[in-house]
Amino acid sequence: MTQRFSDVVGQYSVILFDAYGVLKNSAGVMPGVLDVLARLADAGKDMFVVTNDASRSPEVMAQVYTHPERGELIGPDKHVTSGILAAEFLRAKVCTGQVAYLGKPSSAYYIKSAGLDAVPISECAVDANVSALALLDDEGFDWQPDLNRALNLLRRQNIPVVVANADPTYPVDGQSVAIAVGSLGDLMERIVHKRFIRFGKPDALMYAYAYAQAQLNNTSIDKSQVLMVGDTLDTDVLGGNKFGIATMLVLSGNTRRETAERQIEATGIIPNYICDSILT
Amino acid sequence: MTQRFSDVVGQYSVILFDAYGVLKNSAGVMPGVLDVLARLADAGKDMFVVTNDASRSPEVMAQVYTHPERGELIGPDKHVTSGILAAEFLRAKVCTGQVAYLGKPSSAYYIKSAGLDAVPISECAVDANVSALALLDDEGFDWQPDLNRALNLLRRQNIPVVVANADPTYPVDGQSVAIAVGSLGDLMERIVHKRFIRFGKPDALMYAYAYAQAQLNNTSIDKSQVLMVGDTLDTDVLGGNKFGIATMLVLSGNTRRETAERQIEATGIIPNYICDSILT
Amino acid sequence: MTQRFSDVVGQYSVILFDAYGVLKNSAGVMPGVLDVLARLADAGKDMFVVTNDASRSPEVMAQVYTHPERGELIGPDKHVTSGILAAEFLRAKVCTGQVAYLGKPSSAYYIKSAGLDAVPISECAVDANVSALALLDDEGFDWQPDLNRALNLLRRQNIPVVVANADPTYPVDGQSVAIAVGSLGDLMERIVHKRFIRFGKPDALMYAYAYAQAQLNNTSIDKSQVLMVGDTLDTDVLGGNKFGIATMLVLSGNTRRETAERQIEATGIIPNYICDSILT
Amino acid sequence: MTQRFSDVVGQYSVILFDAYGVLKNSAGVMPGVLDVLARLADAGKDMFVVTNDASRSPEVMAQVYTHPERGELIGPDKHVTSGILAAEFLRAKVCTGQVAYLGKPSSAYYIKSAGLDAVPISECAVDANVSALALLDDEGFDWQPDLNRALNLLRRQNIPVVVANADPTYPVDGQSVAIAVGSLGDLMERIVHKRFIRFGKPDALMYAYAYAQAQLNNTSIDKSQVLMVGDTLDTDVLGGNKFGIATMLVLSGNTRRETAERQIEATGIIPNYICDSILT
Repeated sequence: MTQRFSDVVGQYSVILFDAYGVLKNSAGVMPGVLDVLARLADAGKDMFVVTNDASRSPEVMAQVYTHPERGELIGPDKHVTSGILAAEFLRAKVCTGQVAYLGKPSSAYYIKSAGLDAVPISECAVDANVSALALLDDEGFDWQPDLNRALNLLRRQNIPVVVANADPTYPVDGQSVAIAVGSLGDLMERIVHKRFIRFGKPDALMYAYAYAQAQLNNTSIDKSQVLMVGDTLDTDVLGGNKFGIATMLVLSGNTRRETAERQIEATGIIPNYICDSILT
Repeated sequence: MTQRFSDVVGQYSVILFDAYGVLKNSAGVMPGVLDVLARLADAGKDMFVVTNDASRSPEVMAQVYTHPERGELIGPDKHVTSGILAAEFLRAKVCTGQVAYLGKPSSAYYIKSAGLDAVPISECAVDANVSALALLDDEGFDWQPDLNRALNLLRRQNIPVVVANADPTYPVDGQSVAIAVGSLGDLMERIVHKRFIRFGKPDALMYAYAYAQAQLNNTSIDKSQVLMVGDTLDTDVLGGNKFGIATMLVLSGNTRRETAERQIEATGIIPNYICDSILT
Repeated sequence: MTQRFSDVVGQYSVILFDAYGVLKNSAGVMPGVLDVLARLADAGKDMFVVTNDASRSPEVMAQVYTHPERGELIGPDKHVTSGILAAEFLRAKVCTGQVAYLGKPSSAYYIKSAGLDAVPISECAVDANVSALALLDDEGFDWQPDLNRALNLLRRQNIPVVVANADPTYPVDGQSVAIAVGSLGDLMERIVHKRFIRFGKPDALMYAYAYAQAQLNNTSIDKSQVLMVGDTLDTDVLGGNKFGIATMLVLSGNTRRETAERQIEATGIIPNYICDSILT
Repeated sequence: MTQRFSDVVGQYSVILFDAYGVLKNSAGVMPGVLDVLARLADAGKDMFVVTNDASRSPEVMAQVYTHPERGELIGPDKHVTSGILAAEFLRAKVCTGQVAYLGKPSSAYYIKSAGLDAVPISECAVDANVSALALLDDEGFDWQPDLNRALNLLRRQNIPVVVANADPTYPVDGQSVAIAVGSLGDLMERIVHKRFIRFGKPDALMYAYAYAQAQLNNTSIDKSQVLMVGDTLDTDVLGGNKFGIATMLVLSGNTRRETAERQIEATGIIPNYICDSILT
């Protein structure tokens, strides 16, 4: 059922990687991954990280892919994060004023990068004059008071709400998961009956953004030369399929070998390739 | 559009009241309500409180309806709470062992009343041997760690989950609402993809329970003699309509006079009567 | 994993059977079932059929359980159908006028039994003066024109809508399923954004109705003496569990032996017993 | 509250129009629209039609925008239809074989344009060897047998399903709507529990596709120069907002003047401009 990553990757010019479960885990970059990335770089592959993460800036994220001899293998400009798309939206549609946010102080990077003021929801009165609400990360605030505060803010003001990470959960170790800010967004959206603006895989906008970047580097690229590599069917693979690029499911993260076939059958989300990991 | 409560109530023998927004608000029992209840008692009406509340025992709830001269007007045995139905389920289907719960210590009353041991989720290891999980109240625990703990418990053990309050929010004062445990149940149910067992209006079981109690008192009662009085269309009125009893919307709580007609039109949930309050 | 039906049934006094997949299939009553029912009758069991079916009257349904020597084993008064609950609702809440319906002419029985006039939707102008709309069966009308007609009727008139069968599909032979009227109700409800009133398992009202009938026959019955036998986890077992009675999953219908354990694990809907069929 | 279209449009270089309710209605192109389009063409605007329609080819759609003196004002290459995106997906991900479809014969254009064979579902056995299923239009097939046939096909084969029109309904005259193929896709997706691939607004891929076309014509274009004009908040405006371009709601179609403000408030979908029509 599985193929070897090294047998597949040759036919693609642009490789999009999910980060967590593919390149790294809770202990950091997985052993051997930096060498694989170095070989792909040597082979001239254009590589991107496409990640539902708005907790840190691309600069911080890129640091972990620093090879001891080769330096940074996937730079900040090659990181397509859900936070970047949220920031693009805020820059284009909100323009001025304060943006209230839920998340760690480091996630406020994305608001500031749009030229806006970031205010933690805990410092924001329900009748404060804010231009938008941004749900960036599940950490960095006290859920009960701050979710209730955000809810009442939205009941009084008709402002756009961006959710910069569509994932419902994320893994915290081999055994456990944690509720992600995407689920908190769902919770609030159902209560206020307003449409939140969500960024992140499987939304095809993430792939369109990466694809446009790749085309800037090489105008002759077309979609048949692009491969998405991810560990999750309903984000990485679903979105890549919809965008019309090749997709590979790796079994080094969210999806277990024993249940992979069954999940593909049950969901109807069919990857082009299945590999144990990118080390194969 | 509105009628007077006193003009309507005469034709019914059994009156089911929602508590919050009908009989009381955040300041306690509304002025004048105890006198109305006393007059109804004098007229021989059989009265029940039917409430989505599992935060306190019926004994504690009943105390607020104590008339200075007449004593308790709606006793504990006349309180049909979502907690009672959850406790009935636990008694019938769980039988033995520990039940982990989210909620205030006072909400554990309902677990104990089923003859089971109640353990706060914060004291419960993810691999603890528990027989069920009960979501009882939004207060009394620390949301982020305890919801994550409950989630991971459910990923490892196939145990029934009861949600003893189906409401998504509840009012905290004239201006604000708070996220109720029903929304937290929705959040977790979507993540684990398992069916939780929910108790509370609009589920008809609440009405069936109250109706069965009323029939014990007077075997000649039929549904045409029962009136549900509530301030919320999609719990009180929807459930009463489905159960086949008469329904009255009062405008002393969740539903504002200016938007009542529009909400009825938009939702298709049509009460038999609309009254400003039960004081009219 | 499975037990024998005959080893389990002795400890219960009231047996609720789902019809399709338990007692009968597309070829009629399953071989051997009438003898099992006769033995249960001899043993004094009070038996009911609890079925999400509004396509025919209880009188017609009961005929198939006619034993060549013993006559009718489960009479019309022992058939609790989703149609009966819909009819109860119409009688109590609609009272007068015409009810437009989707379904076979035989399903109009339930409207007429409530003392109301039944009009097929195809004969009903969008501005006709109707008191309610009833979705009774997937057969007996032309889907495209008649669903569109029903939709436009609902956009102009604020009338209650009852869906007398909550099932999304039903089996038509060993291999195939057909879309049931429950799914058509979901389709229309999402479009008009109004709350339809649904009847049928897993709604506990079906069980409450059967239980009340059983108590009329024997006032000393309590829930611990009642067993629900069904072939579907998310209707028969879920509803029975919630109502607080014992539940048995049989593998003679919708649920296959190979996937039963996995489905129980995946859904969290846990029956008290699993049996191959009631013939065991 | 409303502005004049002619006062707004000057500051944008690329104009994306929804077709139905903006440029045309059930009687064809609205009077005066061709003259407006001609003036915009004279002013050098790059104009696109962005439409959730897979019932006909872009060539057929473009014909209606033929000015008596100026000829075709918005050519086939300026029509971004949900059918084109579905065809792109089929070309990239399905590659070979037969695609079963629901829709008019003219909608099969999109399957054939991907180099694939199109087979109406009515001519397709449930065990036929097909590579994908495409839901293209609500017309051209008999709903009950053909939806059931499609459902059973999907229960036996794990193939991708594309839905080439995400709209739930479409207007058929000033008074009535009809159920669109998007709703039929929802119906089937819920039953089979598989993820269908949907194309059409509000999905940002429609806007990304149009934007990429506009950039081919003029590489110096950026999103701040693009305006989406539509009559529907939750497709046209929601998707344009998310993509980060300016949005205009016109009141010449789905959204009525009396309820526009309330809908904006209720949904939280906020257009940059509101105009009576593009004739103003």
